[in-house]
Amino acid sequence: MSPTATPIPIRGEDLAEIHWDPRGLVPAVVQDRDTGRVLMLAWMNEASLRRSLEEGRTVFWSRRRQEFWRKGDTSGDRQWLREAYYDCDGDTLLLVVDQEGAGACHTGEFSCFFRRFGGDG
Amino acid sequence: MSPTATPIPIRGEDLAEIHWDPRGLVPAVVQDRDTGRVLMLAWMNEASLRRSLEEGRTVFWSRRRQEFWRKGDTSGDRQWLREAYYDCDGDTLLLVVDQEGAGACHTGEFSCFFRRFGGDG
Repeated sequence: MSPTATPIPIRGEDLAEIHWDPRGLVPAVVQDRDTGRVLMLAWMNEASLRRSLEEGRTVFWSRRRQEFWRKGDTSGDRQWLREAYYDCDGDTLLLVVDQEGAGACHTGEFSCFFRRFGGDG
Repeated sequence: MSPTATPIPIRGEDLAEIHWDPRGLVPAVVQDRDTGRVLMLAWMNEASLRRSLEEGRTVFWSRRRQEFWRKGDTSGDRQWLREAYYDCDGDTLLLVVDQEGAGACHTGEFSCFFRRFGGDG
């Protein structure tokens, strides 16, 4: 049973509220819908945001490689976008996803935030 | 009954893993411990991270004002830091807090991410 994409309508009134940084990017926080866990943070430009909403999967902009990066195309660990929000300043996105596969992190961890300050005590 | 601060030990092995951007900053995602809701994103430099861990409250660096900004000093809506994580790349922080008062957002909303792409349908 493969998850089904649920595209989100692209509205001009939403896009107009986003304030892209000088590089044309904003940070996007990705949260798992079931567990509420924060999975990762990556960057989006307007084109990758549009693709994410249209395709119902997360598509980021790789700052290092300067190219689109559709999450899970290589690893299989796709993120199905269910809800997307922008913050009061319009300079950060929050993406609520169904995380497929082992998790969001290339290390094999479910969340990229698996290291705790001060240790696990 | 006022919440109690729970300082987090500052360890060199944690700080050594953080990769500050050219401005000396990293984004910090703030999540509410009780509800799991993502509240906001703000920026930290090393000094504000150290203060946050020591004081057990979130202290950010204001990029616009170029000064420390201890959350809640003006609004009263303080954030009591309970757990802090860094991601696999060491370039993003996740702060789990007990949010005091009305919420994290200057608009009066509990979370800054109160606007949804595509509307509330």
